[in-house]
Amino acid sequence: MAWEIVIVASVTWIGIDMPLQVVYGVHHEPFFALMRWLTAAILVVDLALLATGRFHESRSERYHKGWLLFDILPALPVGWLWGGQSWLTLRIFKVVRMSRILRRWYYRNAHRGTILRLLFFVYFLALLAHFLACAWALIRPPQGPVRALTHYLHSLYWTITTLTTVGYGDVTPDPNSPTQMIFTMVVMVTGVGLFGYAIGNVAQLLANIDRAQADYRDHLDRISAFLNYHRVPSSLQRRVFDYYNFLWDNRRGYDEPTVLAELPPALRIQVALALKREFVEKVPLFRGASPELVQELALELKPMVFTPGDHIFRAGEIGHHLYIISRGLVEVTSADGHTIYSTLSDGAFFGEIALLFSHERTATIRALEYTDLYSLDDQTFEKILARYSDFGNSVRTEAQRRMEQMKRGEHAL
Amino acid sequence: MAWEIVIVASVTWIGIDMPLQVVYGVHHEPFFALMRWLTAAILVVDLALLATGRFHESRSERYHKGWLLFDILPALPVGWLWGGQSWLTLRIFKVVRMSRILRRWYYRNAHRGTILRLLFFVYFLALLAHFLACAWALIRPPQGPVRALTHYLHSLYWTITTLTTVGYGDVTPDPNSPTQMIFTMVVMVTGVGLFGYAIGNVAQLLANIDRAQADYRDHLDRISAFLNYHRVPSSLQRRVFDYYNFLWDNRRGYDEPTVLAELPPALRIQVALALKREFVEKVPLFRGASPELVQELALELKPMVFTPGDHIFRAGEIGHHLYIISRGLVEVTSADGHTIYSTLSDGAFFGEIALLFSHERTATIRALEYTDLYSLDDQTFEKILARYSDFGNSVRTEAQRRMEQMKRGEHAL
Amino acid sequence: MAWEIVIVASVTWIGIDMPLQVVYGVHHEPFFALMRWLTAAILVVDLALLATGRFHESRSERYHKGWLLFDILPALPVGWLWGGQSWLTLRIFKVVRMSRILRRWYYRNAHRGTILRLLFFVYFLALLAHFLACAWALIRPPQGPVRALTHYLHSLYWTITTLTTVGYGDVTPDPNSPTQMIFTMVVMVTGVGLFGYAIGNVAQLLANIDRAQADYRDHLDRISAFLNYHRVPSSLQRRVFDYYNFLWDNRRGYDEPTVLAELPPALRIQVALALKREFVEKVPLFRGASPELVQELALELKPMVFTPGDHIFRAGEIGHHLYIISRGLVEVTSADGHTIYSTLSDGAFFGEIALLFSHERTATIRALEYTDLYSLDDQTFEKILARYSDFGNSVRTEAQRRMEQMKRGEHAL
Amino acid sequence: MAWEIVIVASVTWIGIDMPLQVVYGVHHEPFFALMRWLTAAILVVDLALLATGRFHESRSERYHKGWLLFDILPALPVGWLWGGQSWLTLRIFKVVRMSRILRRWYYRNAHRGTILRLLFFVYFLALLAHFLACAWALIRPPQGPVRALTHYLHSLYWTITTLTTVGYGDVTPDPNSPTQMIFTMVVMVTGVGLFGYAIGNVAQLLANIDRAQADYRDHLDRISAFLNYHRVPSSLQRRVFDYYNFLWDNRRGYDEPTVLAELPPALRIQVALALKREFVEKVPLFRGASPELVQELALELKPMVFTPGDHIFRAGEIGHHLYIISRGLVEVTSADGHTIYSTLSDGAFFGEIALLFSHERTATIRALEYTDLYSLDDQTFEKILARYSDFGNSVRTEAQRRMEQMKRGEHAL
Repeated sequence: MAWEIVIVASVTWIGIDMPLQVVYGVHHEPFFALMRWLTAAILVVDLALLATGRFHESRSERYHKGWLLFDILPALPVGWLWGGQSWLTLRIFKVVRMSRILRRWYYRNAHRGTILRLLFFVYFLALLAHFLACAWALIRPPQGPVRALTHYLHSLYWTITTLTTVGYGDVTPDPNSPTQMIFTMVVMVTGVGLFGYAIGNVAQLLANIDRAQADYRDHLDRISAFLNYHRVPSSLQRRVFDYYNFLWDNRRGYDEPTVLAELPPALRIQVALALKREFVEKVPLFRGASPELVQELALELKPMVFTPGDHIFRAGEIGHHLYIISRGLVEVTSADGHTIYSTLSDGAFFGEIALLFSHERTATIRALEYTDLYSLDDQTFEKILARYSDFGNSVRTEAQRRMEQMKRGEHAL
Repeated sequence: MAWEIVIVASVTWIGIDMPLQVVYGVHHEPFFALMRWLTAAILVVDLALLATGRFHESRSERYHKGWLLFDILPALPVGWLWGGQSWLTLRIFKVVRMSRILRRWYYRNAHRGTILRLLFFVYFLALLAHFLACAWALIRPPQGPVRALTHYLHSLYWTITTLTTVGYGDVTPDPNSPTQMIFTMVVMVTGVGLFGYAIGNVAQLLANIDRAQADYRDHLDRISAFLNYHRVPSSLQRRVFDYYNFLWDNRRGYDEPTVLAELPPALRIQVALALKREFVEKVPLFRGASPELVQELALELKPMVFTPGDHIFRAGEIGHHLYIISRGLVEVTSADGHTIYSTLSDGAFFGEIALLFSHERTATIRALEYTDLYSLDDQTFEKILARYSDFGNSVRTEAQRRMEQMKRGEHAL
Repeated sequence: MAWEIVIVASVTWIGIDMPLQVVYGVHHEPFFALMRWLTAAILVVDLALLATGRFHESRSERYHKGWLLFDILPALPVGWLWGGQSWLTLRIFKVVRMSRILRRWYYRNAHRGTILRLLFFVYFLALLAHFLACAWALIRPPQGPVRALTHYLHSLYWTITTLTTVGYGDVTPDPNSPTQMIFTMVVMVTGVGLFGYAIGNVAQLLANIDRAQADYRDHLDRISAFLNYHRVPSSLQRRVFDYYNFLWDNRRGYDEPTVLAELPPALRIQVALALKREFVEKVPLFRGASPELVQELALELKPMVFTPGDHIFRAGEIGHHLYIISRGLVEVTSADGHTIYSTLSDGAFFGEIALLFSHERTATIRALEYTDLYSLDDQTFEKILARYSDFGNSVRTEAQRRMEQMKRGEHAL
Repeated sequence: MAWEIVIVASVTWIGIDMPLQVVYGVHHEPFFALMRWLTAAILVVDLALLATGRFHESRSERYHKGWLLFDILPALPVGWLWGGQSWLTLRIFKVVRMSRILRRWYYRNAHRGTILRLLFFVYFLALLAHFLACAWALIRPPQGPVRALTHYLHSLYWTITTLTTVGYGDVTPDPNSPTQMIFTMVVMVTGVGLFGYAIGNVAQLLANIDRAQADYRDHLDRISAFLNYHRVPSSLQRRVFDYYNFLWDNRRGYDEPTVLAELPPALRIQVALALKREFVEKVPLFRGASPELVQELALELKPMVFTPGDHIFRAGEIGHHLYIISRGLVEVTSADGHTIYSTLSDGAFFGEIALLFSHERTATIRALEYTDLYSLDDQTFEKILARYSDFGNSVRTEAQRRMEQMKRGEHAL
């Protein structure tokens, strides 16, 4: 990886340096000379590393024979040895290797695709501006005695002015030079197109960054329009949007089930465990549970949300689920709602009595706050009871305790 | 909320004032001096309010310790006391608190996301232009003796000319000043990019405002293309589009069921009631109904639309639904359509005979106008009859009356 | 409708004329004077028409009382009578009525939404440019003695140059005139924004025009990429795309079922009839059929497509459908494919034997060309036989004839 | 096809040449004269070819009578014979035929729609610039004695400067020439609009080219955001993205089933065979299989992917599928996982014992690498066994051998 960065940096430098040499001749400043030697050395070392096979491209990508030429040519000691320009272009063939490296980076970081494409566009636009500025510097020699750096700066200034379509007009092609006229037209048409395309892409990439959130807000906008059209009171609207905000905070536009459904079994188990790790740690019932049981539960528990006042179930209904509270507060009451047996919060479970002993709910459960629950359906519950007797015993003990309390009329489930 | 607006206004003013001071020195005009004292006072008061905890950030957002520094530093009496510039920048740290306030506003108004983002972009672009204009004013001193305001105006003019890519060229960087050249290039590249991005965003936001309608019209465009391709007569096409227009007027691209399905139970009941309040009020059958019954009906009644000439059902068919008219006019006829028993309109119900006594429809019902109905399926109907005997009795009485009328051959259902 | 066009044209003319009067004073050329009298007369007549209720707004839209003021004010004989400018603006209030008319036009033509929005944007941009040009003409008086028309032309030229961001710089604001500087900035920021927004909208509208086709081609692009990736031979790919092209030609991206499913019953029958009119006319079986039968068939017949070589069914399979050929050619063969009983084309039906006498197909049917069929499932077929005995008899007669032919080993089904 | 290219090239040349002649008079350079004769000859030849019917338009498109005029007029020997300009425009009617040819090309290559539209836009923009340049050359005669080519170049330069909105301002319309002013405005408004529209289209087309990949990466971006929000460890995230990368490499965003489901039966079989050709060739079981069997299997085999560590099935489960390995490595173990019977790789099959003899799986199968499988459900398997006894026998023989080996406790299934 570190070596790959060195290669990309070297090739980028060659790309910056070469057009400058074409325009202004070989630089003899120490910095440029040093960089020339350094990049040359790097190309030779890279060839050696590739030849000895010490530096494998990657497991999946084999090194093709055809690539060898593009690694040997740039490493040849022609041109840079005696300062000539003619063979300098050989080194640019290393771009083949660079493109392989960039593709690999992009591939390895597919889930960071947006930011990588953004960086690539900035990189590409900078190089494009540099090349065009050098070309312009070549066909439009300095008017009067100016330093090379000033001349380059003026050329770059013209390029940027034209590419961004600002076009002040303080630097324009000489009408008597067809070369300059035609080059200007080419820069305007292709350059402006590329620049506009890149800007458009960057805008779209930036838009993508929070697309999940934007989609969600757009959805709320529409719901809001619908509710307003039907003159739903604004206090009720506020409660509706509070609910959506709560959902967004806890889900970020994704459901656990959606994400898990796409994964193959082995990964699904591990991602499910990772997602529910915090929850599992705070449920007393799972304290002594075996890893297999926790795995199975992580896969089978389905997330649900209730808002204040929602009935999770009512006494007398047929019960098919056991619930475990992830976060929130619920109230256990009698069927008429007058006797409050108990309140339950994070980590508590309820609904087991109907699954174990009767089929009817023996109490009514109502959410007092926004409550995140996980539910377990009765078939999975029975399968788990059959396989994990310890778990079954602790659930049964608790259920029995609660039923006796209810008989005694105490304030507990 | 009022205090939050004061804070945001203060920080905005600091953001406008500070770069001006950097360029033109401290202003001693009464207005600027007053504003300087005022904003300073506001920052101190805000720190006091936060310290005494009187001003809670919000229920869900706790005040982090790390934020304290960014609230103390701007309140320190350095710089503005003796008019020096060196410590002025301290005040800009208050931007941390402002960003928290803005985020909270955005969050609380998620369903007005579009308009808020639009305002934010305008705000951001105005500040950007101001900053760039001040920077340009700094590196390009006035040519000749002009007032500071005129100089600032010219700087802003250059900034706007460049950012919008109009680029008249009446003001251009001095080719002998590399600083001006480079600054111009930076403004062109980043500035133009940001401006283009903002314009693009604004365009998309404006497009979103009536996206529901645009989607709907696009759908009609396509249907129209299909019907034209198959040479469907234009009089029939007109009737098709009349239907779609009617739907749009009454639904605004949303169905009740779609909106309700997303909500949790407690909210669903209340939104359903709010949506059907007008309808419920005009149905005589619901006059004396208990709130529980109205709630249940609000949830279970499904909206339907029929166009003139549509048969809602025909005599002899097996009936599974009771219908209540929300708006419109229907005709009750015999199976052959020759005898018209009755017409029914807003608030009337029909179809109860098949549910109560027979399974076959005893009459044919045809819509005479665009008719909005709510339907109730037979299972829910029976459940409701069992629970609400008053309601059952009034339905049964009316049904009996109608059957007798039909037997007597009178004009009524 | 004709009168509505007159109103819109009048208000548009007022919108063009008024800013010109503000800049250049009242014109006394005969054309302008005539137009002034004419529009004034039209406004009075319209008020009269509205007052006498002769001109109803529309059935669904009632005339609000509040609108009256905006219809009376423009009709008042102030200003235009003695040529003064002060009260001229009263007439512009008629824009309220114009906006109602435009909204109604838009509403009535919802299925032509794209083209209407396009026209609106062109109209809006033209007016915007005119207003800005007049404002610029007002704050930048002519340099030297030029005719008013030339001055207006130069002002419009500046406006267009600026709005399109071309910005030659041959006309720029006077740096000593803050008014001109500020106005230029306002034009650049808001004008450029509006222009960019309008261009963006037009681009999107144009894109929408053939979106159905674009979506379809995009789909083919992807299929093509997939097939290429898996190295499917190009001759086979060609056949795949031939099939898609055929589908496009016959369906234009829409299925009959998709369109019909959205319509209410009465419209569905009529649209179905219109869509299948040509087909129904060429099927001999339907010649003497009653309108009710044709209606029922139009609703129940489902379209299908087979490509050359496809088996529609094979001898020995259990048959559940009757098929009628809309366009194409099929071959009737024995189970082993060696004996060709017959070929059938447009308007012929087959598959009735299995539905009438046996449950097994007695022959194999293979498409020889691209073949459009309509299929009828067995349940609907039986229902229709029961109700329409004439139809049943002709089907049965034909089936008997074919079975005998097959027994005699002749070349016919 | 070759002749069609000649026609398109000729008409394009006429389109380039004609406006030049209008501006600069008839060229007498040998090249232009030759081209004039050549295109004239081509038009005559094409008319002859069309008349003799030797060159059919296409099978589906008949030659309409109305088109004849547009083919005769351009072939008339007026104008070009004596070098006059008056009748030259006749030739441009050939554009009718060209548009038919272009439409046909576009239609035939619907699956390459993106690239064709791109080419069309480039072609259209080039011609537009040429026309506008010629018009500008006509209304703005050369200042001073310059060659026609230089004058044209300057006109084109102005056109491009204006269309791209760069607008240097070194060439601007003469303020005393209303024609030039108005023409400039028209170019700016319509030209800029068209250019912007074309650039926008090109950008969208380029974006479409890798839309499948972009969609996929966007999906990963969101999954990544979700996993980060829930603090899933990055090592686990890496494994998740490895899996998605593997899927992308093997599927390119498409499933076989998705593509196949859209095709009619005959094509479906052949595409399925083409997609699975490589796989079928490497499975020993299919070596001697009849083409019919291979066809049936190609349709019925469903692709699946397992990641390292995934259990394909466990001993004791009820088995409903036979699996064939396309690529990868699996391990056959006893129920407790301690005894490894065997490993299987590309081309091997497993799971047949449960389908043939018992219903319970007799061993556990676990993937050791990323493994591509094809599965066959039990009903299809039985149908195939019944019809293809050879295939059944080889499966049965292998199953028996494996069961005996397992009994003997050897290391093999």
